[in-house]
Amino acid sequence: MAYELYYWPTIQGRGEFVRLALQQAGADYVDIARGHEDDGQGVPALTAYLEGGATTRPPFAPPFLKDGDVVVGQTAAILLYLGPKLKLAPKAEADRLWAHQIQMTIADLTAEAHDSHHPVGLALYYEDQKKEAKRRSKEFRKQRIPKFLGWLETILSANPAGDQWLVGDKLTYVDLSAFQVVQGLLYAFPKATKKTLKETPKLAALAVRVADQPRIKAYLESDRRLPFSEEGVFRRYEELES
Amino acid sequence: MAYELYYWPTIQGRGEFVRLALQQAGADYVDIARGHEDDGQGVPALTAYLEGGATTRPPFAPPFLKDGDVVVGQTAAILLYLGPKLKLAPKAEADRLWAHQIQMTIADLTAEAHDSHHPVGLALYYEDQKKEAKRRSKEFRKQRIPKFLGWLETILSANPAGDQWLVGDKLTYVDLSAFQVVQGLLYAFPKATKKTLKETPKLAALAVRVADQPRIKAYLESDRRLPFSEEGVFRRYEELES
Repeated sequence: MAYELYYWPTIQGRGEFVRLALQQAGADYVDIARGHEDDGQGVPALTAYLEGGATTRPPFAPPFLKDGDVVVGQTAAILLYLGPKLKLAPKAEADRLWAHQIQMTIADLTAEAHDSHHPVGLALYYEDQKKEAKRRSKEFRKQRIPKFLGWLETILSANPAGDQWLVGDKLTYVDLSAFQVVQGLLYAFPKATKKTLKETPKLAALAVRVADQPRIKAYLESDRRLPFSEEGVFRRYEELES
Repeated sequence: MAYELYYWPTIQGRGEFVRLALQQAGADYVDIARGHEDDGQGVPALTAYLEGGATTRPPFAPPFLKDGDVVVGQTAAILLYLGPKLKLAPKAEADRLWAHQIQMTIADLTAEAHDSHHPVGLALYYEDQKKEAKRRSKEFRKQRIPKFLGWLETILSANPAGDQWLVGDKLTYVDLSAFQVVQGLLYAFPKATKKTLKETPKLAALAVRVADQPRIKAYLESDRRLPFSEEGVFRRYEELES
C-alpha cells in the first residue's frame, strides 16, 4: 500500500524533508493534501487528523505520515520510521541513533530559520513582527548559521568512513535533509550562507552530491518540486539580510 | 557501568528531563559536570565533548549521555535510547515511536518556553531583548501554552488504555517529561498555566500522580533537585506575565 504523506500542499516546508526521502527511494506515496477533495484528499483530509477525530494518536502538526494503521508525526520521527523501510538508514542500531540525532539537530536549525521571520509568534503576520525579525535574523545569520553548518562540517570531517556522507559510507536520509536545509538557507539568506559554505567545503560538496543523485535531480527539475516562497519555513525578505 | 549524564551543573534545563528518568528508575548515574575537576569531572569534562576532540560523534549541545562507547545527544534521542533500558518505555515498537513523538513535541514546547525570554538570540542577554520578550511571551501565554497543554490533554483523553498515563497503562518517561514541562511553565508563567490547567484536568492530575511517585518525591525533596531560576530554560520574569 502506498505511503500517505500529509503536509500543506503549496509549500516545501518541513514536509520537503520527507518528500526528498520518498523521492530518492522511488517509493510509492500519495501527497494527500495535494490531491483532490473528490478523492477524499486535499486539505480537509489533513485537518481531520489534526482535529483528533481520525485517530487516537493525533499529530501535533503536519507533516505526518500514514502507513497502514501507523500514523507518525514530527519530521525526524517520520524519517526514523521510514529510513530503514526506504533503505536510506544505516544498518547498525547505534548508527541509526546517530543519524536520528543529526536529523533532530537539522530540525532545530529549521525551527530557528522559521523563527528568523516569526520571532514573536506564528499567529501574527510577518509584517507585524518585522522589527523583531530584523534583530533575530541578524543573530541567526551571524551566530546560528555558522554554528549549525560548522557542526555538520565537523561531522563530515570526523566520519571514520570518509567525508562523502554524514553517516557511514552511503547516502542516508540525513544527507538529503542536509541538502534541503542548505538550499533553504541559500534561498533565505544567500549572502550569509554562501559566506559560511566557503568555510564548510565538505558540506557544500555534499549538497552538490545530493543534487546530482538521478532521482533527486529529476525531482528537482519536475513540477512536483514546489518552489521556495514567502509562505514557507525558509523565506527571502531582503530587509532581513541587510 | 554507571551512565554518565553531561549537562550544565547549576540549572534544571533540558538535562532535567533525563535526570527525572534516571531518578525514577533508580539508575546508577553520574551527573558529570556537577562532579569535581580533580576526578576528571566538572564543566571541562563536558566542554571537551562539545569541542569535538573526545568523540567522532560530537553532540551539538548538552544534554548528552555516555553509556560505554555510546554518546547520545538531543534530549528526546537520549530518552528514546534510555527508555527501554530503564523500563520506562512501552514495549511495542509502535508505542515507542508514539512516546518518542510526544517527547519531541514536549521538546518543541520547551524550546518555545526558552524563546519567550530569548526571542532575538541566545548570544544576547535577556535585558537586551526585553521588549521583544514581552511580545513573544504574550503570544506564548495566549496561544502556545493552551495549544500544547491542550494537545497533551487530548492524548490522555484518547488513550484507549485509560487517562492515567500518556502512553498505555503504565508510567513512561513521557509522563515524567510532561510533569517537568508543567512544573516549568507553572514557575515561568503561573497565572497563564494555572488557567490552562483548569481546562486540562487530566494533565493536571497526571502531574500530581508523577510527583507522588516515591522516588520522584524523594528526589524533588532532596538537594539533588536544583531549583528553577533565572538561568534556566524556564524563567520567571514578572514583567513577562503582566
